Amino acid sequence: MNEQTDIRSLFEPRGVAVIGASSNPAKIGYKIVENMIASGYQGEIYPINPKGGEILGRPVLKSVVDAAGPVDMAVITIPAQFVYGAAEECAQAGVKNLVVITSGFSEVGDAEEEKRLVEFSRQHGMRVLGPNIFGIYSAAAAMDATFGPGGILPGHVAIVTQSGALGIAMIGKTAAESLGLSALVSIGNKSDLDEADVLGYLAEDDATKVILLYIEGVKNGDRLAAMLKQITKRKHVVVIKSGRSKRGAMAAASHTGSLAGADDIFDSVMRQCGVLRATSVQEAFNWARFLADAPLPPGPNAVIITNGGGIGVLATDACELYNVNLYDDQPKLRETFKGVMPDFGSSKNPVDLTEQAAVDDYAQALDAVRTSPEMHACLALYCETALFDTEQFASLLRRQYARFRGKKPIVFSLFGGEKIEATTQTLRKEGIPVFADVYEAVSSLGALYQSWRNLGREEDVLDEPTFDVEAIRAVLQSARADGRSFLLADEASNVAELLGISMPRSTVARNLEEAVSAAEDIGYPVVMKVVSKDIIHKSDAGGVALDLENREEVIDAFQAIMRSCRAYKADAAIEGVEVAEMVKAGVETILGARQDASFGPTVMFGLGGIYVEVMKDVAFRAAPVSNKEALNMISEIRSYPLLLGVRGEKRKDIESVVQVATTLGHLVNVCREISDIEVNPLVVYDHGNGAKALDVRILLGEDKGVNPS
Amino acid sequence: MNEQTDIRSLFEPRGVAVIGASSNPAKIGYKIVENMIASGYQGEIYPINPKGGEILGRPVLKSVVDAAGPVDMAVITIPAQFVYGAAEECAQAGVKNLVVITSGFSEVGDAEEEKRLVEFSRQHGMRVLGPNIFGIYSAAAAMDATFGPGGILPGHVAIVTQSGALGIAMIGKTAAESLGLSALVSIGNKSDLDEADVLGYLAEDDATKVILLYIEGVKNGDRLAAMLKQITKRKHVVVIKSGRSKRGAMAAASHTGSLAGADDIFDSVMRQCGVLRATSVQEAFNWARFLADAPLPPGPNAVIITNGGGIGVLATDACELYNVNLYDDQPKLRETFKGVMPDFGSSKNPVDLTEQAAVDDYAQALDAVRTSPEMHACLALYCETALFDTEQFASLLRRQYARFRGKKPIVFSLFGGEKIEATTQTLRKEGIPVFADVYEAVSSLGALYQSWRNLGREEDVLDEPTFDVEAIRAVLQSARADGRSFLLADEASNVAELLGISMPRSTVARNLEEAVSAAEDIGYPVVMKVVSKDIIHKSDAGGVALDLENREEVIDAFQAIMRSCRAYKADAAIEGVEVAEMVKAGVETILGARQDASFGPTVMFGLGGIYVEVMKDVAFRAAPVSNKEALNMISEIRSYPLLLGVRGEKRKDIESVVQVATTLGHLVNVCREISDIEVNPLVVYDHGNGAKALDVRILLGEDKGVNPS
Repeated sequence: MNEQTDIRSLFEPRGVAVIGASSNPAKIGYKIVENMIASGYQGEIYPINPKGGEILGRPVLKSVVDAAGPVDMAVITIPAQFVYGAAEECAQAGVKNLVVITSGFSEVGDAEEEKRLVEFSRQHGMRVLGPNIFGIYSAAAAMDATFGPGGILPGHVAIVTQSGALGIAMIGKTAAESLGLSALVSIGNKSDLDEADVLGYLAEDDATKVILLYIEGVKNGDRLAAMLKQITKRKHVVVIKSGRSKRGAMAAASHTGSLAGADDIFDSVMRQCGVLRATSVQEAFNWARFLADAPLPPGPNAVIITNGGGIGVLATDACELYNVNLYDDQPKLRETFKGVMPDFGSSKNPVDLTEQAAVDDYAQALDAVRTSPEMHACLALYCETALFDTEQFASLLRRQYARFRGKKPIVFSLFGGEKIEATTQTLRKEGIPVFADVYEAVSSLGALYQSWRNLGREEDVLDEPTFDVEAIRAVLQSARADGRSFLLADEASNVAELLGISMPRSTVARNLEEAVSAAEDIGYPVVMKVVSKDIIHKSDAGGVALDLENREEVIDAFQAIMRSCRAYKADAAIEGVEVAEMVKAGVETILGARQDASFGPTVMFGLGGIYVEVMKDVAFRAAPVSNKEALNMISEIRSYPLLLGVRGEKRKDIESVVQVATTLGHLVNVCREISDIEVNPLVVYDHGNGAKALDVRILLGEDKGVNPS
Repeated sequence: MNEQTDIRSLFEPRGVAVIGASSNPAKIGYKIVENMIASGYQGEIYPINPKGGEILGRPVLKSVVDAAGPVDMAVITIPAQFVYGAAEECAQAGVKNLVVITSGFSEVGDAEEEKRLVEFSRQHGMRVLGPNIFGIYSAAAAMDATFGPGGILPGHVAIVTQSGALGIAMIGKTAAESLGLSALVSIGNKSDLDEADVLGYLAEDDATKVILLYIEGVKNGDRLAAMLKQITKRKHVVVIKSGRSKRGAMAAASHTGSLAGADDIFDSVMRQCGVLRATSVQEAFNWARFLADAPLPPGPNAVIITNGGGIGVLATDACELYNVNLYDDQPKLRETFKGVMPDFGSSKNPVDLTEQAAVDDYAQALDAVRTSPEMHACLALYCETALFDTEQFASLLRRQYARFRGKKPIVFSLFGGEKIEATTQTLRKEGIPVFADVYEAVSSLGALYQSWRNLGREEDVLDEPTFDVEAIRAVLQSARADGRSFLLADEASNVAELLGISMPRSTVARNLEEAVSAAEDIGYPVVMKVVSKDIIHKSDAGGVALDLENREEVIDAFQAIMRSCRAYKADAAIEGVEVAEMVKAGVETILGARQDASFGPTVMFGLGGIYVEVMKDVAFRAAPVSNKEALNMISEIRSYPLLLGVRGEKRKDIESVVQVATTLGHLVNVCREISDIEVNPLVVYDHGNGAKALDVRILLGEDKGVNPS
């Protein structure tokens, strides 16, 4: 079955049944029928209720099987215990989509019934939206199949929300803010259809210019990320994610895992996907409204027009915060604005018209920005003065906005008293981007610029992994066969070699004689580490000796290691010691990759030891990553300058780090049974001299398989 | 003369002259007279204009000397070239304060005329507010002596603004938001009276509960900081500072200076002073309104009441961001709210009344929070549902707010459509803290809590400096006498010794024999550094040798240093080499102190090398600092855990760092001719083992003297 067609039938159904329709206006089953009629849905509406009768002039059928025409969607509002039965009738009637409003499933602990419902539905060619939702609105079908307050305006913003209460309230909010919607989907428990499915439709829907996601928790995040990466090449996507708490990170067993505060990963992945993350609902709404109507800027350079120095400086601060580039060609600015301000001849940006500015001065200055090929966006600020006619100014704003529209983005910020407040509200309702606060205005322009940079980004080229997957699987298999969920040092080294990750030369010596002979073979200085599946934290056990310069030191160290490890854990089975080349110093980095609970395969990067542990200076990406994306990740940490070389040091071999990062990403993507792999440290040398992995740790988990995408 | 009395006469003048009064309603000289009358000023108003006549029913005098009664304040609106003459007449008339509205002084480059005006005025017992301002409003005198739009409501917030245009617009904004003011002062060029002077009055003004400062640049910041520290023990102070740019930092010559991005210092000092820093004007207004009316919480524990899980989670996120502590005693929560929700028996905070909640449920839940001794503040959230009567809810909010008022702080956030928006606006105008966005609501409660913690802070005990200032001055003097603005290594060591800062044992050797003998005396290993006033960056010149283990190495190193330094700078006068004890490893820190352009004496702290240079992980304080404040500074850096001991290491000797920080703070406070002193590194050992300063650099500047305070 074609899933794309399926999902279209949810947004553009030929006929809709409302199971549990009611003639009592206080009931959800009434409200939905009422909203569907009021919104102008042109397909057939079939109210279903065993009691029969009539609702809002429509005859009530006793069962969905009685419908005369095709029923692409059934909205189910009856109590939880009757939903399965309704699904059976729907299957019989050839329904394609169940929109299960009803709550009382997995959200109250009854995951079994929910699973049963979904399994039955999928077997019978039906998709399930919900349960525990308020419904769906689709402008393409002029269909408000929600129990919200009605009055949704059609437009260009699609909202997908996991929270019901917030979603319902958003309906009123969008109407109050004149924010037009192309779709509004409540996804609730996501028992079957989730964000990624819904995005599949919205990606192709021409009316949808901006997608606003409200997310509380992510399941199958790798599918979501893949979908988002595609969509953000063509549309703006804004996300609000609540629950920035530490949950999830706690569960992760390994060292890398313990750093992966779930929100850090979410944040990184959204950036990677080109998604704009808003903090508050208000911010998300501001952005969505603006993005839905604003043209893409023809270039990076914004100009501030103001009549107050103070707000000009505040706006400049905000531009730095929100990454809006201010045009700064002094001669050009002087030339452009000399006609507007013959006496002052400002050559600065913000262009300060001074508090003497009249409406005409604004008009000229805005015209100048609009027609200048070097200036690409405008931020017009106004501080109320006694000299100014607010009515006249409002007209100017309307006129200028109409002229800018479709050509260059412009945002306004007006600051002042009652009249200014009223004007701001009036203009906002007309869809003009006027804000009371300078920071809000700049934040919206900043969102547009961020999205513009995303839209313009190069196609991400992902190289195929070059390592021998089967050989690696064989190593993992042998560890499993040994009853272990982790790899021993020599197994991990073996995997590293198969991955092309360079490690110091080393041999496992089973006794003192072998240790000495290995050291002589490798060449001094050497390091030694205990090899034992019973001892994971080798240093703590006294199982490590460094910088052994000669035969005598090797002998002493071997004996000391054996003594310490026995003392640490008397019954530990010790296989021997690893004797290895002592590596020269470089910049220590940590690279890791793991199966994240939300996003599946992910990679992380940070600088060694303290930087990661104390400074929490780490970056994440969803895997696999391209070379370009790996470099983005690496350059995102605050301590990145250390790799570029500080204090006259040479640039480090960043290419090697990129190489290891992409390799680890591929590995955890291909071998999902690897729950964690950590290279710590990867010592990076000067440019051209590569990097060496001193320790590689690999943990195995359950292979949950690759998600279908 | 008593300055306090003087400043009171500016806010509560017995009579006011308006010099440049006009009968033309388009003129500033008319508007001010009009506003003074309209605001209800009860003292005598003397319009002054050589043309004579009458303005708004008041006779116009030809000169201020003709005034019949006392004139405590003269508002001057005439062109710049006539202001000095007017000041002469004011002096003759015994005027106490000149409020110079007129622009065209230092802000357009004419600092001379401004200086002449201030000098004359001070000589004749007059203080000057301005020039380049829009005037002053004082609720204590029911006096609006500004040319703003009028309609200022009396209340409890005092605004002090450096920006005229923004200040004027704020008048309208405060009226539109029903924000009552105790005072509004435009300080413009700050030629004489500045923020600190104005704060001197506001500190004692009972009507003023909150002070809102808009600052663009700080002069005499040490005086301002001292004043703020005192005021924030009793009142809330909110500051907006524009211009977060890098200017100022560029000018600083030394290494410490180059880190001192002016905004970092401003930010640190404000925190040190207990001042709340708002980012945007809207945020500052939100805080000021709320703080002016909210009672201090009886304790730290806040409770969230909500009817939507989604906004509850968003609010929880916001509470973490704004440092609002959520009450979390599960049994107590269950017990408290079981009456409200018998079926659910929620034991969580946010308390989720669910979307089924009716107005009565809110009433009961809010009553429970209000009467519980364990719960100290409330955040009531509401997501619009179909089930809810908005009118009834608005009444509930009013009732509950009245009950909470004076007892516990409460903020509301309502999310929904037209009705909710209208209700929010209505309630806001009534002064009830209702916000459209959850983050705004929590931000305001967070500001109250931050201020509450400041208000409750212990008195800062400042120890007297114990070092011999005169002996230090003698060392500085000898460097000056030698024509240097920096100290040589041995001079700096001398100062360090006088300050009680421990440095490694060292001697300056003038030749090879002396070097060997010094090394033998100190004991191996030793380090050697070239001593030359011509070579500042010793390492770059190859003038440093470390870890010299024996006589032979000392000989080799001495010769190598001489060779390198000659090659580096052939004509350098080399006095010899410093032979010093080789110090054992520890945590490397940097401590500095300097004369900041804005705040005068300041101290900084960071972890050695990379942490400061690359990670910009530094903290600042205005000096002198108490032990407690020094510890606050030290613990503020992200890498602080390194001093507490990570990976099983012991806690470091933080007391030694505190000691050095307070000492440096005292030094730059007492010896203002020291422009910079930097201890880099200060190597800190385990707790109890002290710290050693490896290098101390001291730069001298012009001694601008201690500001009068």
